[in-house]
Amino acid sequence: MMAIKYELIKECKQSGARLGRIHTKRGIIETPIFMPVGTQATVKAMTVEELKEIESQIILSNTYHLYLRPGHELVKKAGGLHQFMNWDKPILTDSGGFQVFSLGALRKITEEGVEFRSHLDGSKHFISPEKAVEIQNALGSDIMMVFDECAPYPAEWQYVKNSLERTTRWAKRCKEAHKNTDNQALFGIIQGGMYEDLRRQSAAELLELDLPGYAVGGLSVGEPKHLMYEVLDYTTPLMPKDKPRYLMGVGSPDCLIEGAIRGIDMFDCVLPTRIGRNGTAMTSGGRVVIKNSKHTEAFEPLDPECDCYVCKNYTRAYLRHLFKADEILGLRLLTYHNLYFLLKLMAGVRQAIQEDRLLDYRREFFTKYGYEL
Amino acid sequence: MMAIKYELIKECKQSGARLGRIHTKRGIIETPIFMPVGTQATVKAMTVEELKEIESQIILSNTYHLYLRPGHELVKKAGGLHQFMNWDKPILTDSGGFQVFSLGALRKITEEGVEFRSHLDGSKHFISPEKAVEIQNALGSDIMMVFDECAPYPAEWQYVKNSLERTTRWAKRCKEAHKNTDNQALFGIIQGGMYEDLRRQSAAELLELDLPGYAVGGLSVGEPKHLMYEVLDYTTPLMPKDKPRYLMGVGSPDCLIEGAIRGIDMFDCVLPTRIGRNGTAMTSGGRVVIKNSKHTEAFEPLDPECDCYVCKNYTRAYLRHLFKADEILGLRLLTYHNLYFLLKLMAGVRQAIQEDRLLDYRREFFTKYGYEL
Repeated sequence: MMAIKYELIKECKQSGARLGRIHTKRGIIETPIFMPVGTQATVKAMTVEELKEIESQIILSNTYHLYLRPGHELVKKAGGLHQFMNWDKPILTDSGGFQVFSLGALRKITEEGVEFRSHLDGSKHFISPEKAVEIQNALGSDIMMVFDECAPYPAEWQYVKNSLERTTRWAKRCKEAHKNTDNQALFGIIQGGMYEDLRRQSAAELLELDLPGYAVGGLSVGEPKHLMYEVLDYTTPLMPKDKPRYLMGVGSPDCLIEGAIRGIDMFDCVLPTRIGRNGTAMTSGGRVVIKNSKHTEAFEPLDPECDCYVCKNYTRAYLRHLFKADEILGLRLLTYHNLYFLLKLMAGVRQAIQEDRLLDYRREFFTKYGYEL
Repeated sequence: MMAIKYELIKECKQSGARLGRIHTKRGIIETPIFMPVGTQATVKAMTVEELKEIESQIILSNTYHLYLRPGHELVKKAGGLHQFMNWDKPILTDSGGFQVFSLGALRKITEEGVEFRSHLDGSKHFISPEKAVEIQNALGSDIMMVFDECAPYPAEWQYVKNSLERTTRWAKRCKEAHKNTDNQALFGIIQGGMYEDLRRQSAAELLELDLPGYAVGGLSVGEPKHLMYEVLDYTTPLMPKDKPRYLMGVGSPDCLIEGAIRGIDMFDCVLPTRIGRNGTAMTSGGRVVIKNSKHTEAFEPLDPECDCYVCKNYTRAYLRHLFKADEILGLRLLTYHNLYFLLKLMAGVRQAIQEDRLLDYRREFFTKYGYEL
């Protein structure tokens, strides 16, 4: 039995979007979906009960961080990541590739893998494709990612070509190393930077591996948004229709809708939790910086159109006070609201696909949020 | 109608403890009780729903902090402190006295009141007894405290005498300034340091004011515990039997039990929340420092005898990981557990009084916790 199965429910008649379900052994994921990020075996400031309350269907956790701390062997002894953190719904783990490449001068890439120094204590480590699989097997995530190389932006054509070809070779090694295919689905990552021919090459090579799902990597790395959309325009049509499509590291409301319009099923990003901890809320009327003095006497909800716990129970004036006073409850409440906001946005996207009106939904949402179309 | 009414249910035959109820317009408080501290209109790291889940019956908030930020006028505009923070059960506010005296060189005491500089921005302020009442009236707490002077430890007899006499004069001024007696009960604070004759004098003077409740102040200010117990031994018998007795700023498990044994009904302290945020848990087997390496692979509950949310769902190993990784969830969970632990301890104290066995309860608890009797 396969670890996951993608079911295509319907395609939107107004866009390239698709409504679907990913069947996993830990439950069904309605797509398109946003995945809250729980880097260190916890979605920052949230309990798992709160994640369920806001209807999180799957969360993401980071292999690099868990490998360093507390260590994948410890997590394995605890009974795997689900049991360790008390979350019984699906988990996707990244491969650690993006994180180790982001270490810059602290890492050295060879064909064998990547040698790097820990950002925590400077200790030396080596992650190969085989090691990335071993770690993710120990963590026991439902969806694993191949160890890839994510090219920076901007990058020369030849650099990106060499990089994506290595990613293909590493993906093969990951597939060979991965034995637990019944319980953990290994996804491929299409690279190729901002070059259409290279995206085609990467997709063609990776599709030969017949992996149970595919991601678009190397986006949201500093390029302008229109360029990201362009890349998606020519990349998603290259991806299998009968498998989930995952756009990595993207989480602003406009990108989620634009990604869904282009046929993406899964998204993740630290954006909602990170800006929440910094006092910025996503609301139906756009971003709200809660510390702003104009909220001092605002005895009204953060978002009058939101029916989340925070908006039902607290005022902007109180939330502002919590942030001015450095109170943990402030971080908690804005994190909760922002995640709720994005998950509800995705529920709206799914509903709009069902009704063949995702472009209308985009227009309505953008107008209120203050985005330009 | 009085703002509160104390009902004495029974006295323990084994000790001086008493089982009672404080009837307030926002519900009944079963005593003896521990009050979680919500200094800045939030019990740090907790939601009000969580406070109710662990059966908090009343919380304390700090006048000094709320006066400075967000300001009592703002809280009043918000509909009062209960509405501002979304807590509909009773709130006790201190008078700000203890906090401004703690400012040391930043404050100057005169008969009129205390001039001080804000610990936030150095701005100059003045709080008189009348002002302390005005602020607490604006906050709308169910129980208010008189503006008192808390003598340090150690302090000379004559200094303490002058100080308690000023406290009496200030208490009179507070009583005169307080108009909202139907909704807010003003408690007196018995001072007198570690001198029995001065405690007698203070109690006698304040009892003349016939206030609806009395606190013992000036304890837990650095004196050894046996001295605190001695002071309680001769002070609580001076206090009215038909009114609540509150021991201010005390929250370690042994002091709660010893205080109850001596007839105290109410306690508050930042201890459980503060040490929780620092990674120390109170458990039936004594204090646990969760970062200790011996918990690395401890796949067992924080406290095997505890049935709180944290102990039912998480292991010491996971909690240790959260603290090592500086995750907010760690603070949340240990705060939650510690408050639950103290509230359950007090429920045990009430049960033991009911059964006339509080001294046995103390022996059993102390033995397991590792306290010496």
